Amino acid sequence: MINIIQLGMGPLGCKMTNYIRDRKTVRTVAAVDPDPRKAGTDVGELAGGTAYGVEIRSDLRAALWSAEHRPQVALVTTVSDMERITPQIAACLEQGLAVVSTCEELFYPWDEAPELAGSLDQLAKDNGVALVGTGVNPGFLMDTLPAQLTAVCQRVDRVEVHRVQDASKRRLPFQRKIGAGLSPEEFASRKADGSLRHVGLTESMQFIAQALGWTLDHTEDIIEPIIVDEERVFPDLRVSPGYAAGVLQTGNGYIGDEAVIRLIFRAAVGESESYDEVIVHGEPNLRSRIEGGVNGDVATCAISINACRSVLEASPGLHTMASLPMVSNSR
Amino acid sequence: MINIIQLGMGPLGCKMTNYIRDRKTVRTVAAVDPDPRKAGTDVGELAGGTAYGVEIRSDLRAALWSAEHRPQVALVTTVSDMERITPQIAACLEQGLAVVSTCEELFYPWDEAPELAGSLDQLAKDNGVALVGTGVNPGFLMDTLPAQLTAVCQRVDRVEVHRVQDASKRRLPFQRKIGAGLSPEEFASRKADGSLRHVGLTESMQFIAQALGWTLDHTEDIIEPIIVDEERVFPDLRVSPGYAAGVLQTGNGYIGDEAVIRLIFRAAVGESESYDEVIVHGEPNLRSRIEGGVNGDVATCAISINACRSVLEASPGLHTMASLPMVSNSR
Repeated sequence: MINIIQLGMGPLGCKMTNYIRDRKTVRTVAAVDPDPRKAGTDVGELAGGTAYGVEIRSDLRAALWSAEHRPQVALVTTVSDMERITPQIAACLEQGLAVVSTCEELFYPWDEAPELAGSLDQLAKDNGVALVGTGVNPGFLMDTLPAQLTAVCQRVDRVEVHRVQDASKRRLPFQRKIGAGLSPEEFASRKADGSLRHVGLTESMQFIAQALGWTLDHTEDIIEPIIVDEERVFPDLRVSPGYAAGVLQTGNGYIGDEAVIRLIFRAAVGESESYDEVIVHGEPNLRSRIEGGVNGDVATCAISINACRSVLEASPGLHTMASLPMVSNSR
Repeated sequence: MINIIQLGMGPLGCKMTNYIRDRKTVRTVAAVDPDPRKAGTDVGELAGGTAYGVEIRSDLRAALWSAEHRPQVALVTTVSDMERITPQIAACLEQGLAVVSTCEELFYPWDEAPELAGSLDQLAKDNGVALVGTGVNPGFLMDTLPAQLTAVCQRVDRVEVHRVQDASKRRLPFQRKIGAGLSPEEFASRKADGSLRHVGLTESMQFIAQALGWTLDHTEDIIEPIIVDEERVFPDLRVSPGYAAGVLQTGNGYIGDEAVIRLIFRAAVGESESYDEVIVHGEPNLRSRIEGGVNGDVATCAISINACRSVLEASPGLHTMASLPMVSNSR
């Protein structure tokens, strides 16, 4: 049994609670959220179920103090950027907790935030614990899995990953998030304020490059609307001709003039199919495809919970999915 | 640069030499083969190319003594069974060499040969080095990759893997190896003498079970001929009606009455398609397919060479592909 303290009881944290609850080898023993309205609330009830016997506390020390069982791993589902998550994670490490976080920038922080990465690495080593950033994307489909597949390659020239999702069966908030139904001008403004951006393409590229022993000269992260020619009508949403059905985000990682890594994330209402595909150009060429694609919500919760065991087995320090013992489902 | 000593200069060892030669980050610095006819031969020439500057020696000490650069990893491509490989590997470990081997039974020896596994583990720890058994199958397609894919699963009920190969484009020795062209009686006799068996299905099942935290009650390894109804004619081979076009080998791993792991290896001349497919039944269901399949010869050499870096980074002891840092291509 692995004892988990959850940090961040927003929608993702609540989902984690429910997923942890359905497992036999992990349990939530404490929970922290700074929102005063959540203080004292049972995590199970906040997550929409019956009481679980763990009350949310407003700070880490209070949560640790009140926990019936000593937590081993902090599962941190708070923010996406290194700047804001570093002090939160540092506090956990100082308490001797291993850390698994869905923070996108933590998945591979060595290029974009090397100083913060270095300080967390040192602090983890000082406290004899390991930490890792993971998730489905970044964390697996567009980075770890492609790198794992190259294990059977004698030579890799170029890596291409496609994550394509028909969002018409997803909930309206997700459809809104990818810009479905927006005019080109609205799309441009959402892009400008950063609220449309999928965080992590650059980290995924840097991870792949590091795994393959490549040094990228520069990277691009391009966001474009997918504009439709014909009207698309769905139960909750209508996309008029000339409007966006969703987003196309492309990450290009260059060595010299050549895009040796290309990550294509395409999510729109009315896409003809959903799939996750890895194409490795090299010796041999490989094309690996998950038909139907992987549901992001389930997968992000699952991989984070699955990583708890690996992070406890790992040597102290800041890990990536490449240095961690293999993450797999374990009951 | 990683310095490699090769043990076993048979066909696979010679292929390894050529693959190593094409890389920039590894090199063969010594080679051992007990065949007196190979002693003194240059590895590059034995492998069908130009001289490489490394002469084959008949024993490990002589090879180490004559090596211009101190080897770090022994790449052992000699035999398939734990009984015979253990003293060979022990000798390497005692010399402080890390070990990567294509020995099928070494991929997961903890269930079938726990005492030999334990002794190698201890010896590796005593000498501060790591060792691992790997390859394409066992080693990746029917075990490591399926386990890696469960990282995004909240629950796994059942794992099914298909490795299906049309052998009509492979060389005649491979076609003969899988029993193509044999009568049912000849097939039965080849099966009885063990020369038709793909070694490693049981090890693959035990590896998956261990990764998923399962304990299998029993396993089956079933070998059957694929008998054709109509004649199949190929350049080098003709399969008459009622004769075998190849082999179907099925591994079933049971918990109680349920086959929770099913590995299906199907290789025949005239199969309509080649592919490698992993099906995970659980939450979510996953179906991942490599169209065209992965060429076994290239992949086995590639993954073994790629594992050299991981084994040098690993903690001392006997590893599996699950405990090793991620194996990926690295130039």
